[in-house]
Amino acid sequence: MLPLQLQPASHIPLYIQLRDQLRALVHAGDLRPGDRIPASRELAVQLGVHRTTVANAYAELESEGLIQGHVGRGTFIRGSALPMKITPPPPSLGGNGGVRWESLFADERGEEVLSRLTQESPDHDVSFVMARPAAEFFPVEELRACCNAVLRREATQILRLGPSDGYPPLKQQLAEMLRAEGIAVRDENLLITDGCQQALDLLCKAFLRPGDSVLLENPAYPGAIAIFAGARVRCLGVPVRTGTRANGSGGPVGVDVSALEATLIANRVKLMVLTPDFQNPTGTTLPVPERRRLLEIAARHQVPVVEDHIYARLRARVEKVPSLKQLDRANLVIQIDSFSKVAFPGLRVGWCIAPENVIERLRLVKQTTDLHTDQLSQATLAEFTRRGLLARHLACMRKVYGSRLAALQAALEKHMPEEVQWTRPEGGMCLWVELPHGFDASELLIHVRERGVLFAPGRYFYFQNPQPNTLRLGFAGLDERRIARGVATLAELLRIEMRKRQRGARRVEGARVALV
Amino acid sequence: MLPLQLQPASHIPLYIQLRDQLRALVHAGDLRPGDRIPASRELAVQLGVHRTTVANAYAELESEGLIQGHVGRGTFIRGSALPMKITPPPPSLGGNGGVRWESLFADERGEEVLSRLTQESPDHDVSFVMARPAAEFFPVEELRACCNAVLRREATQILRLGPSDGYPPLKQQLAEMLRAEGIAVRDENLLITDGCQQALDLLCKAFLRPGDSVLLENPAYPGAIAIFAGARVRCLGVPVRTGTRANGSGGPVGVDVSALEATLIANRVKLMVLTPDFQNPTGTTLPVPERRRLLEIAARHQVPVVEDHIYARLRARVEKVPSLKQLDRANLVIQIDSFSKVAFPGLRVGWCIAPENVIERLRLVKQTTDLHTDQLSQATLAEFTRRGLLARHLACMRKVYGSRLAALQAALEKHMPEEVQWTRPEGGMCLWVELPHGFDASELLIHVRERGVLFAPGRYFYFQNPQPNTLRLGFAGLDERRIARGVATLAELLRIEMRKRQRGARRVEGARVALV
Repeated sequence: MLPLQLQPASHIPLYIQLRDQLRALVHAGDLRPGDRIPASRELAVQLGVHRTTVANAYAELESEGLIQGHVGRGTFIRGSALPMKITPPPPSLGGNGGVRWESLFADERGEEVLSRLTQESPDHDVSFVMARPAAEFFPVEELRACCNAVLRREATQILRLGPSDGYPPLKQQLAEMLRAEGIAVRDENLLITDGCQQALDLLCKAFLRPGDSVLLENPAYPGAIAIFAGARVRCLGVPVRTGTRANGSGGPVGVDVSALEATLIANRVKLMVLTPDFQNPTGTTLPVPERRRLLEIAARHQVPVVEDHIYARLRARVEKVPSLKQLDRANLVIQIDSFSKVAFPGLRVGWCIAPENVIERLRLVKQTTDLHTDQLSQATLAEFTRRGLLARHLACMRKVYGSRLAALQAALEKHMPEEVQWTRPEGGMCLWVELPHGFDASELLIHVRERGVLFAPGRYFYFQNPQPNTLRLGFAGLDERRIARGVATLAELLRIEMRKRQRGARRVEGARVALV
Repeated sequence: MLPLQLQPASHIPLYIQLRDQLRALVHAGDLRPGDRIPASRELAVQLGVHRTTVANAYAELESEGLIQGHVGRGTFIRGSALPMKITPPPPSLGGNGGVRWESLFADERGEEVLSRLTQESPDHDVSFVMARPAAEFFPVEELRACCNAVLRREATQILRLGPSDGYPPLKQQLAEMLRAEGIAVRDENLLITDGCQQALDLLCKAFLRPGDSVLLENPAYPGAIAIFAGARVRCLGVPVRTGTRANGSGGPVGVDVSALEATLIANRVKLMVLTPDFQNPTGTTLPVPERRRLLEIAARHQVPVVEDHIYARLRARVEKVPSLKQLDRANLVIQIDSFSKVAFPGLRVGWCIAPENVIERLRLVKQTTDLHTDQLSQATLAEFTRRGLLARHLACMRKVYGSRLAALQAALEKHMPEEVQWTRPEGGMCLWVELPHGFDASELLIHVRERGVLFAPGRYFYFQNPQPNTLRLGFAGLDERRIARGVATLAELLRIEMRKRQRGARRVEGARVALV
């Protein structure tokens, strides 16, 4: 038995405690290269913790190179190749010094948005974890041509310090694109950001003080939850109707507008952050009549709506659904958008559309946050848009993602047990699955992970009332063959778990009979 | 007389009130194209405000295109070319809606870091306002070659989402460069940021809660002051000894370490942010014995030091001064640095060196702030560094800036009245001037502005005890000819003001004599 002592009452997550204690045992020489450590299930029972706690700790140690799992043989302390972390630290920077840094941090947060358990490695060739573009379709040569053109034409302009509201040629291209889409936007209504994540950070700084309340869908994008938590802002959750049997079958899908109204009546809400199109994580799209109702309610309560429009252009079918910003009569909507999902996430460029005095305030906040967004990428993307390459790439990707979504839905129909439910997105990058009640998606992840398949358990997306039986499948970055294989594996291992549970239930039933 | 009513007790700055009321008079038709408005001095007397208030308001309206000044003739409401702001707004986005947005903002801040009075236009061909690199020396072709090389070699890696701590090849290049400089830095000690401005924002989020105290030099970089003010952190100022007659002549220059110690004894300080090399705005460099003393004091009080290293590589003379990080035995120093001053400010890439657990915390904060820094610029700068182009460019720029600094010092010696004092930087990008006691640099700016010369009045850099007789001259972006012309103009107008004052003093003296 390993000498491990976990403190459930500590603010340090259990898996972090376990990781650190195991690492200390290796450093102290109590565990040596080649030693076998207990299977996660076994150690979980010994410590009285959930198996995912142990699996999370093992995943972290594996990614550090301290331990290695071998399918069928067990998990071992690694030998020869000494991991970086235990090489003796160089004199000046290796240790953390005499300072108790942990006591100086402003808060106790210390967890990843997604834990290491979902971290990809070359062993995992079917990863549904991320909602990300298909890199194999990046139009690299066209982009390089744009980059060359702007560096030939306007290098000095690009390389010197620029305006905080954005590089003027990019603002001009975006304003033209938006006007063509029917949004009457002027230069004063646009701010360039480092993407939607930064837009949320700037909005948080501009509007919210510690203790203020913000309304979010629950489940929601973990990056949004993390920003508000970091700023000590209270998140009020409104459920999302997924259209499955267990959750709003028959009625409209998307954020529950009646529940939203009730939340506004009962609370002083400063801001709502919503994703009406292909909501992350559920993939649902709020129908137009519900959008109008939502806007009426927002106007009545005078609460601004931040519309996350990041996935909206990825509609597989041609018909258009007007955005909240397009339907907005009361000028209450701030729309945030990005090149990240429609083009290249590695270039951190997005934008924000809002009334002029909001943009002016956000510009000042942006100035104190990072002066301005990188101008090489701004200029390159302006040229990419100007040449019509963005529109062309987007049209191509709509087809690619539409086909991948169809493949995912077909595979789910073909392989999944009848008890499993899922949403029916009409585009975007992810789909939401509900396992039978009582199943834990994190538990399932441990099994499928060993078979090279990864997904994001639903619990990462909830900030209240987590539904452990849910999971998100990001499909955009995977080809049809991988999607089919991944779903088949998921379904196979789920059936195994379901059979185990049935046998368990029968045993309990048998035991009851014997007791009578 | 114009119907203007300023509210000195309002939280809205007086010049903003004045600007808005003048704009409203134009919109209402009370002021029409071609109408002459009072000279700033005249209106200041009428309203009982300082002349800079009126000049600031006029500068804003001029930059909006609403008014235009003509030297010798006065200031007029502009005619024909209707400014953008008063075209009728399009239906959906033009107005600010029925929402009282101002009441929704988290705070009342609404001022630029530097006001419009220092804003450059084609009329101002000698601007000492910014501390910025010389754009005419940007090695554009070399940079374009680097950009092409990385887009040919690793485009997919660059364009997809990347790690929050930075693009690995850039981290590797920086670690090598730093090790060559004698800092034992490993991958775990480095975080890539969007530049020093963002590094300060991340440090603020990681370490400081509203109400906490941070120690800064006073005067300091306005971008740092703005970050802490926005986060409701208390700034404690420590004076900087400039070595002039009025301020520390004879003793060591740079932050007053004894005053710093007294501040640490009297207050619970969470963090110090200091710029030991070519401090912005004073240009002073803290001598090595004072650096050691500072580090001892920091260790005794266990207060981490954030060392702003952004100008340190721009030493005109070859001899090296060890950084705080290099002298740091207690591992208390977090060093922030950037490509912004040594290469291209338009590419927003910087870095932060710190103990491993600090970097780990900053990485999580960075993740929730903007996921990661733009990878096209990271990869391009990695290649620029790898090819030795950064070192070459830097060697060239040290000479260029050294020559400009010498030209500035020579011009000051030649033209300035004896009563004027200034610092003696050994590099960096700016120099600090002290006018005779009782003079207001903002007032002088109004005059030199009309002659095409701009500088930054000292008051922008103070967050307490402002010294209105100070000003900063950023010299790096100006060639020797412009520097000489700018200083000659400054000196000429200053002498005129000094003579006026002498005459005024004689009149008072005469009046006294008459009264006796």
